[in-house]
Amino acid sequence: MNGTLSETNIGLHVEELEQGFQVSLDGRVILRHTSGNPCLFIGRGEEKMDMYRGNFDIEDYVEERFGLRYSNVSQAEQGYRIEMKRSAQDEEALHLSFEVEKGKLVLHFSNELNHYNRFWLRLHAEDSEYVYGCGEQMSHLNLRGKHFPLWTSEPGVGRNKRTYTTWQADVHDKAGGDYYHTNYPLPTFISSRGYYCHVNTSAYADFDFRKSSFHELHIWEIPTSIQIETGETYKEIVSKLTSQFGRQHALPEWTYDGIWLGLQGGTETVQKKIDAARDSGIKVGAVWVQDWQGKRVTSFGRRLNWNWKWDPKEYPGLDEKIKEWKREGIRFLGYINPYVVVDDSLYNEAKEKNLLVLNQEDETYLVDFGEFDCGIVDLTNDKAFSWYKDVIKTNLIDFGLDGWMADFGEYLPIDAKLHNGISAKVMHNAWPALWARVNYEAVKDAGKLDDIIYFMRAGYTGSQQYARLLWAGDQSVDWSLDDGIASVIPAALSAGMTGNGLHHSDIGGYTSLHGNKRTKELLLRWLEMATFTPVMRSHEGNRPTDSYQYDHDEETMKRFADMTDIHCTLAPYLRELVEENAQTGVPVQRPLFMEYETDVHALNIQYEYMLGSDLLVAPVYEQGRTTWDVYLPEDEWIHLWSGQEFSGGSVTVDAPIGEPPVFYRKQSKHKQLFESINNRP
Amino acid sequence: MNGTLSETNIGLHVEELEQGFQVSLDGRVILRHTSGNPCLFIGRGEEKMDMYRGNFDIEDYVEERFGLRYSNVSQAEQGYRIEMKRSAQDEEALHLSFEVEKGKLVLHFSNELNHYNRFWLRLHAEDSEYVYGCGEQMSHLNLRGKHFPLWTSEPGVGRNKRTYTTWQADVHDKAGGDYYHTNYPLPTFISSRGYYCHVNTSAYADFDFRKSSFHELHIWEIPTSIQIETGETYKEIVSKLTSQFGRQHALPEWTYDGIWLGLQGGTETVQKKIDAARDSGIKVGAVWVQDWQGKRVTSFGRRLNWNWKWDPKEYPGLDEKIKEWKREGIRFLGYINPYVVVDDSLYNEAKEKNLLVLNQEDETYLVDFGEFDCGIVDLTNDKAFSWYKDVIKTNLIDFGLDGWMADFGEYLPIDAKLHNGISAKVMHNAWPALWARVNYEAVKDAGKLDDIIYFMRAGYTGSQQYARLLWAGDQSVDWSLDDGIASVIPAALSAGMTGNGLHHSDIGGYTSLHGNKRTKELLLRWLEMATFTPVMRSHEGNRPTDSYQYDHDEETMKRFADMTDIHCTLAPYLRELVEENAQTGVPVQRPLFMEYETDVHALNIQYEYMLGSDLLVAPVYEQGRTTWDVYLPEDEWIHLWSGQEFSGGSVTVDAPIGEPPVFYRKQSKHKQLFESINNRP
Repeated sequence: MNGTLSETNIGLHVEELEQGFQVSLDGRVILRHTSGNPCLFIGRGEEKMDMYRGNFDIEDYVEERFGLRYSNVSQAEQGYRIEMKRSAQDEEALHLSFEVEKGKLVLHFSNELNHYNRFWLRLHAEDSEYVYGCGEQMSHLNLRGKHFPLWTSEPGVGRNKRTYTTWQADVHDKAGGDYYHTNYPLPTFISSRGYYCHVNTSAYADFDFRKSSFHELHIWEIPTSIQIETGETYKEIVSKLTSQFGRQHALPEWTYDGIWLGLQGGTETVQKKIDAARDSGIKVGAVWVQDWQGKRVTSFGRRLNWNWKWDPKEYPGLDEKIKEWKREGIRFLGYINPYVVVDDSLYNEAKEKNLLVLNQEDETYLVDFGEFDCGIVDLTNDKAFSWYKDVIKTNLIDFGLDGWMADFGEYLPIDAKLHNGISAKVMHNAWPALWARVNYEAVKDAGKLDDIIYFMRAGYTGSQQYARLLWAGDQSVDWSLDDGIASVIPAALSAGMTGNGLHHSDIGGYTSLHGNKRTKELLLRWLEMATFTPVMRSHEGNRPTDSYQYDHDEETMKRFADMTDIHCTLAPYLRELVEENAQTGVPVQRPLFMEYETDVHALNIQYEYMLGSDLLVAPVYEQGRTTWDVYLPEDEWIHLWSGQEFSGGSVTVDAPIGEPPVFYRKQSKHKQLFESINNRP
Repeated sequence: MNGTLSETNIGLHVEELEQGFQVSLDGRVILRHTSGNPCLFIGRGEEKMDMYRGNFDIEDYVEERFGLRYSNVSQAEQGYRIEMKRSAQDEEALHLSFEVEKGKLVLHFSNELNHYNRFWLRLHAEDSEYVYGCGEQMSHLNLRGKHFPLWTSEPGVGRNKRTYTTWQADVHDKAGGDYYHTNYPLPTFISSRGYYCHVNTSAYADFDFRKSSFHELHIWEIPTSIQIETGETYKEIVSKLTSQFGRQHALPEWTYDGIWLGLQGGTETVQKKIDAARDSGIKVGAVWVQDWQGKRVTSFGRRLNWNWKWDPKEYPGLDEKIKEWKREGIRFLGYINPYVVVDDSLYNEAKEKNLLVLNQEDETYLVDFGEFDCGIVDLTNDKAFSWYKDVIKTNLIDFGLDGWMADFGEYLPIDAKLHNGISAKVMHNAWPALWARVNYEAVKDAGKLDDIIYFMRAGYTGSQQYARLLWAGDQSVDWSLDDGIASVIPAALSAGMTGNGLHHSDIGGYTSLHGNKRTKELLLRWLEMATFTPVMRSHEGNRPTDSYQYDHDEETMKRFADMTDIHCTLAPYLRELVEENAQTGVPVQRPLFMEYETDVHALNIQYEYMLGSDLLVAPVYEQGRTTWDVYLPEDEWIHLWSGQEFSGGSVTVDAPIGEPPVFYRKQSKHKQLFESINNRP
């Protein structure tokens, strides 16, 4: 080391240790390295990755892994430069350089050792630390004590090896999944020590938060950079993070007008259902019609015809109907994904123009989606990207759609050959964000960001800006913690912590497999939870006839009327939150600790949330309950339904169906609005 | 490298490669090392191991692993010495020295790098190579294409993550297991390239046979040595292997006198069952009475009282009865294991004399066996070893037992504190062989090796000599490949390949859990298979009332009479095989390829076996079958029941219950004996 190190960058502190160094940012130790406990390991691995319809089987044979124990710190023009080697005598060196720019610590790694394909960085950690984020995590909000492989995929059916559903899904379809499987992973997390960390990579990664004195970030490449930024509060950190990665444009004004009813089956059926819903007093803001482009029937259930064009046979007169419904205050939403079904018009056009992803034999790569094959639009090819934007503009926007589900994004096969020449293993994670950007630009270019909304489940870095609204993907229609109604709460909160502050889910859940059928009780509990999220949308499920539906009885329709009315009553409050999210990145649904920073107990609560600063929501996610135990941070709370007052602590409240445990702050400026909910006619 | 290398040892050939070397033995390449593809890796790991009643949950965090790429070969006094380092500049070196002594290649590893606790050696392999052994493997005879963790444990209930039984066992008891779990692992295997390899270690190991160009032997220590010996035939290799590790003393003469009936419930019950069996014509050679020392009832079923003394209350007059039965030609066998139940007389005596294993707080280590706790006799303490031998001599042998099940041995907890000061993690695998030696020496010291037999399920290096007869452990009472009737066939064959040539199993299987109940058909199929093994022994199972028993109906008893008669008819043949095993180590039950070395198809057959050189047995292991497909190596075969002649190839034969597919060689000198089986009165 040459001379004494001094602080040249604000907040940055580099300290010499015996045979090592320590890097701190704003008083937080970030890296601590000694030759005995190196902070950096590199090596070589040979992966085995198999995909079965979006479910991946991944094994790594790590042939080599060794610490870069020797370090030599020097000051560089902008900051510091550390030579790191296995030993002083070693010829191979990796150079870590870093500086702080506008409060942001950026670690750069030199590429001399790029013949190694495995990288492990240990960030300093403390025993009492909590970690959040890593994208949309459906099983865990606090990530400490577990490791999280970060690889976009189907999240799995069951997602817990101890459940019978998971076991069956594994045995029948290799589709059971585990706690860390998600459509939307992110190499980004927030620490309770007051910082966010983001790794600039789209390679496979696995962040390990199990060790007491370090977090180990494992990446299947030497990443170009890692950035870290501190904040005094979670809100400040999220705000800085989203200022970096982008925020969601606010929702169109019409989204506050009522539920988005998931319907299908042709123009006449949709019309009838709209009429019946309105007759029952259900406030319908939109109909979401996923089969607007026709259907095909498979053993999984009825599937959509992936050719992204109005099907006038299934939907006669839809072009005019859309206008009529819009006049009546009901928007029409459709469906699209990044695949084109084989031998249909879009596929043929794309194939002819060389816009599809290829296989290693330079033929069109066909993905099996279960009884039908599709081509993949090559979003790394600017021409293909533009072409698909045009498909969206022409076939969806110009046709009159005010929104759609922009499904999928997780399935890019790792053996595909892409136009940009980058390995599909590296592009796999990046794909969902590319797909999000296609949608974003199509809408933006049409000048319709204020009118049109699409919703996505898959994501990666960049999705913060481009995936304007998340939906939680395909939950099982059950009460399981890892794949049922409960799982969408940590999903919303963890996504919110890393930059996606607008979240919703299929009311009632989606997947009916292995004996699971949606019950009335589940549907109604999901309904009442969705009431207190930014968007209410129903889904008939993958097997509609196996699933209880909103119109299966009069009582259920009455409940839907009631809850959509409450949701609309909340519109002024929700609008404010959505606007806040757009301006600051602070999510609409927030962990309790984001509002109550000093409440240590709140750090582990993942099945309650704050809807903004003033509403605490504790959804009932167990079957057969009539009361519910709720934790309240210290404050003055009023129970929404009874008006009963509470201060902090654990309380038990009545929670019949239709009265989910919701509390508002007595000092809220929206008190009157909240009171009006219980005083509706 | 100093000068040209020459052959100084017979059969050994060391060749210089560019930046590497190659070691061959008798024309077989054993090691092939270049700096690009090193044959040796070392590193450091941090294991997490949890035990739940003999089932282990093992995870390893490999912090470092790197190849010793640099090599410098020199000739030593006895053979060769190779300095191996990560790079030429590196200061740390491991020295590999080797020589061939009496045809045996012994690789020694120096201990300079013993601060590393992980070791990987790559033996050269070829694509077409087959690998066998690694102890008693119940799912796979040919080990190629899989890796095999070597750690003695409960084998699991179900042993296949795709079966419902396994899933339930995992969820309820963490006890489902997997294909590699076994009571008796061995760091020893045989290659179809004509050699055996043995690693001198009892640390946790994992042998990986998945790679096409190398076998990777992973060991959680740097082993002191590895030995390799070649042979021209499998028989020669097994013979050399057993000459190294010991062979089984022949079985007592009385073991050919009939079935060993597993009975329990008191003197009167046993007497009644003996009478009934004899009346039905069942040839009874012995009764095996596991509750001779009393019982305790738990939710798993009735369990034994682990105090290893005749219980005169449960077995009044047993001391005299044993003599009476012996006069009538029926031996009495009991039960013992290496644990003493808490607060009973043996426990109190052992505790007072400091003969029990301690925990880290220097208190007596108590193992929970499911509703009762036990102390562990510390077999690393010579005094305890001798004391337990005396217990066996006094309480079992002197009392009149002619044999016993010497149960367990797999459960040594890894956090125990042992008298010899060696880590329990290293002694865990060695434990079963210690336990076997206690039994062996007790019998040998009493001068009763020709009169007394004990049978064991757990094993490790050394068990070849000391575990005189294996039983296959606790199969589920079902038809599953990995844990049912079929699994005992590869178990017998793989154990036989690595030195234990005497094998048998519980007729009907043992474990009734998770809805499995032993059916009559399963009992009878197991019976007919056992007829063609060295020993027939029945077991009532863990839940006798849930299990079909030999005396549940007249037909079943008749079948038992028939089969025990056949078994006794075979005695001259079996006696010869048992003697051959004692003399040469060639097992009684043999893979087909051991007799038909050039038959490539036979290399993968694991559910048929040769009983000696002249009988081919293809047990029916599926439910509801009346015919069976059999592969016959090229020879002249006669179907035992029909007398029909076959040459080689795939054939289908009738296989009603009672007529398991068995063929004898037309040219066998025992032809008359075999013919007589079908001509019995």
